[in-house]
Amino acid sequence: MYIGIDLGGTNIAVGMVDDNGKILAQESLPTLSGRSYKEIVKDMAALCEKVAQQSGHSMKDVDAIGIGSPGAIDSKNGVVVFAGNLKFEKAPIAGEMKKYFNIPVHLENDANAAAYGEYAVCGHDAESFVFITLGTGVGGGIIIDGQIYRGFNGAGAEIGHMTLKMDGHPCTCGRKGCFEVYASVTALIEQTSQAMKEDPETMMNDWVRENGHVSGRTAFECAVKGDAAAAMVRDEYIRYIAEGVISIINIFQPDMLVIGGGISKEGDVILKPLKDYVSKGDFNKFMEKTNIQTAKLFNDAGIIGAALAAKNNI
Amino acid sequence: MYIGIDLGGTNIAVGMVDDNGKILAQESLPTLSGRSYKEIVKDMAALCEKVAQQSGHSMKDVDAIGIGSPGAIDSKNGVVVFAGNLKFEKAPIAGEMKKYFNIPVHLENDANAAAYGEYAVCGHDAESFVFITLGTGVGGGIIIDGQIYRGFNGAGAEIGHMTLKMDGHPCTCGRKGCFEVYASVTALIEQTSQAMKEDPETMMNDWVRENGHVSGRTAFECAVKGDAAAAMVRDEYIRYIAEGVISIINIFQPDMLVIGGGISKEGDVILKPLKDYVSKGDFNKFMEKTNIQTAKLFNDAGIIGAALAAKNNI
Repeated sequence: MYIGIDLGGTNIAVGMVDDNGKILAQESLPTLSGRSYKEIVKDMAALCEKVAQQSGHSMKDVDAIGIGSPGAIDSKNGVVVFAGNLKFEKAPIAGEMKKYFNIPVHLENDANAAAYGEYAVCGHDAESFVFITLGTGVGGGIIIDGQIYRGFNGAGAEIGHMTLKMDGHPCTCGRKGCFEVYASVTALIEQTSQAMKEDPETMMNDWVRENGHVSGRTAFECAVKGDAAAAMVRDEYIRYIAEGVISIINIFQPDMLVIGGGISKEGDVILKPLKDYVSKGDFNKFMEKTNIQTAKLFNDAGIIGAALAAKNNI
Repeated sequence: MYIGIDLGGTNIAVGMVDDNGKILAQESLPTLSGRSYKEIVKDMAALCEKVAQQSGHSMKDVDAIGIGSPGAIDSKNGVVVFAGNLKFEKAPIAGEMKKYFNIPVHLENDANAAAYGEYAVCGHDAESFVFITLGTGVGGGIIIDGQIYRGFNGAGAEIGHMTLKMDGHPCTCGRKGCFEVYASVTALIEQTSQAMKEDPETMMNDWVRENGHVSGRTAFECAVKGDAAAAMVRDEYIRYIAEGVISIINIFQPDMLVIGGGISKEGDVILKPLKDYVSKGDFNKFMEKTNIQTAKLFNDAGIIGAALAAKNNI
């Protein structure tokens, strides 16, 4: 039995997870970012006790705790080196957690944890596995031979910050033209807003009046209803994703590549055109092709992945 | 003792290589591409005998033979699945070679072999190692935990075909904006020719009159002499390389990244501005940085890498 913790800027989500990656009980608390790491770990520990009990067990049944955290992570030493949205600098999270429970505690970057969750539950036969998650930014995770690939310094798999359009739109990282600037949901919302400005007649304007604000769903939903401007936004957005996916495939030729984040719930609406575009552009013309899928675990990937990464790390 | 074979579209180069990657004897023959794989392997076998003798040994002293070949390679089965410039389709090179010498024969993609050579000789402490070779095209090789990373189908590490400028200049692969279209020597020559057209006063025109044709050296040599147009070509070319290198670092955070190909002979002229540009753009702001170097083995990387990959594969 394992506990997985998804530590985010807004919430701390904690789950009791069995050996197969099933969540048996789950609880959360607001992170109240700005607090010291000691206060936050105290809440995490209380949530651990709670989910263990709720699942009909106790902390004695827990073999290891896994924590997924945003930011620059030193997994080896269990330290959050820097995390802007948590206001952490050199926070020894794993060591602090071990003061509460004397069992192995494994700290992982949150995108790596989510990737490992998808891998362990849905892609466990894959020799090489890449996860790309499209959210506020674009995150990534790489699993090779069953192990999370972190790079020598632990800062690898920042797939959102490979170049897609050199000298293109500015990115929050300080560069221009990163994949994230075109393929994140933030980017989709901007692309949608831009199209609405350019075409006052588009159905997307009505959608926004009904729903209050532009979202990642605006263009997708209006496109289905036959709106041409919305279809253009959707198709161009998928083309951006596809170009990044082709880069990743040409580099890794992974067994399996999984697209996660809210947008992946669109399923075949996004997957079919994405696969078509990728299969035309992929450099590999002679060998078997990468299996491209949408994520299966959605919001649970962080908890499940952190728990199973801890299991794998024991 | 090992034999390394660098099978190219123009020449077959064969070398006797010791355990440390030193070439003891080396011979070559023209490939005469268009011949059957059996005829080509016959020449390769004759060259093996020759270099073994020249080094004061015989084939009995050879533990394994490594072959690096361009194209889509099935290393597991020793088959060149497709190689346009050799006009090979499903050529069972390794099996054919074993008819001459009953020792292990390992077939590898040529860029992977060169990468492994640079890794084994110059980067053997690196946990993760990426090699980018700038030539007619842009090739790549990835070594993780001492093993060549090929992807599940053997077609991985095509770093030249990650996107650098989506919707940019057309690439030979059928897509647009690949890294190769901006960072290959072919691209540099085009960029140089373009600058010469735009500025008839540039010293590069004199250089070409003296040397007969535009080459990858034109802009670099004229820039050193103070020609502004040449310096612009050189600096922009380095910026293209740097943008690709940043993408690779953000994805892999390798211990070591090595730039190969003829242009790498420029040494610090290319390395210093490249490192400066990369260190400003790299997403990693908190962890140790990748060690970026130029290649050390140059033309011998193929032979040495093929030999040592065979050694590693026994």
